[in-house]
Amino acid sequence: VVLLFKDDATAFNRQKFGTIDGKGPMNLRISVRILAEMERAGIPTHVVRVLSERELLVRKVQIVQLEVVVRNIVAGTFAKRYGIDEGRVLERPLVELFWKDDAHGDPLVNDDAAQLLGLATADEVVAIKALALRVNEVLRGFFGERGIDLVDFKVEFGRASDGRLLLADEISPDSCRLWDRGTKQKLDKDRFRRDLGGVEEAYQEVLRRVEEPIA
Amino acid sequence: VVLLFKDDATAFNRQKFGTIDGKGPMNLRISVRILAEMERAGIPTHVVRVLSERELLVRKVQIVQLEVVVRNIVAGTFAKRYGIDEGRVLERPLVELFWKDDAHGDPLVNDDAAQLLGLATADEVVAIKALALRVNEVLRGFFGERGIDLVDFKVEFGRASDGRLLLADEISPDSCRLWDRGTKQKLDKDRFRRDLGGVEEAYQEVLRRVEEPIA
Repeated sequence: VVLLFKDDATAFNRQKFGTIDGKGPMNLRISVRILAEMERAGIPTHVVRVLSERELLVRKVQIVQLEVVVRNIVAGTFAKRYGIDEGRVLERPLVELFWKDDAHGDPLVNDDAAQLLGLATADEVVAIKALALRVNEVLRGFFGERGIDLVDFKVEFGRASDGRLLLADEISPDSCRLWDRGTKQKLDKDRFRRDLGGVEEAYQEVLRRVEEPIA
Repeated sequence: VVLLFKDDATAFNRQKFGTIDGKGPMNLRISVRILAEMERAGIPTHVVRVLSERELLVRKVQIVQLEVVVRNIVAGTFAKRYGIDEGRVLERPLVELFWKDDAHGDPLVNDDAAQLLGLATADEVVAIKALALRVNEVLRGFFGERGIDLVDFKVEFGRASDGRLLLADEISPDSCRLWDRGTKQKLDKDRFRRDLGGVEEAYQEVLRRVEEPIA
């Protein structure tokens, strides 16, 4: 299967539309670099190889109908849902599962509901949560070395033909909240969601830091 | 502490107000009968003794800030949240935890969030879910013998001074969805919530069946 990385941007369950110039190629490069890091850490991903600046060849998987969110710092829907100030550091990372169901606004599901709704088996829920926490660990270290705090991120998993779970998603400023460690500046899609300006520049900055060799 | 059973009825996070004539004394009698059944089944409750037709003396506890919902059949907010038809029988009972927080509409929390939000310890979450499922088992049997399907119910738990968790709530047609097994008629607060009429009669019918000796 070929994934096409577009410049289109959407937010708030597709209620907001727009374009971020050059986002597709930037997100492809960021994702490929990070997914390679995941593979090195023993987390299997769907990546096969890059076909062009916007095209990524990936293994065909059956996508688990869960958006898996890991949070290190309070932000976004978590802050809103529970009335907690953005920026509070959680005592430990939190995994939240949401049913991929646009018609109902991707509602939160607890682990038992995920099973009863037929979204994943009990074993898969356990495995997905463990994998997501492992991804968080690697990703936090990776961004930390680059002066970026990983606030939260969303990933999806797929079932390969052999039944194995693969990380089957992009990992980019579209799907992560990334705050500069020093300035706390947002380097992610929140700049687009909240009309903060400097959207392209933020993605470029993340790309630069992701690709720059670490001393 | 003295619990006062009033005739006031509220719904939809207190957006709907009303009165159900004679509800207080009926709910007190229903609750007392059912909570005695729980004690017999080994589930500790806060009940001490009845003081009057509207007053119940209970042990003072620190209420855990969770609304614990157990569902056997799809209805209410679960049906709405996930877009599933009311009446679908779940493969097994589902426990859902909601943060008792009117200002934010009692939002759903998963088990990890309940801990991270400081609502309960990891051990308490496990114990509360196990107790809730045990309550469900006893309650389902009790209503089943009386020709009533237990669709779902909400309970709260409290920490006694010795740290033990007690069932610390009423159990009545205010907090349970009860459907007549034969006619599927609703015998609970949904008659009030949805303006179905026959509200008092439904509570009377539940009281009658709850107090009637079983052959």
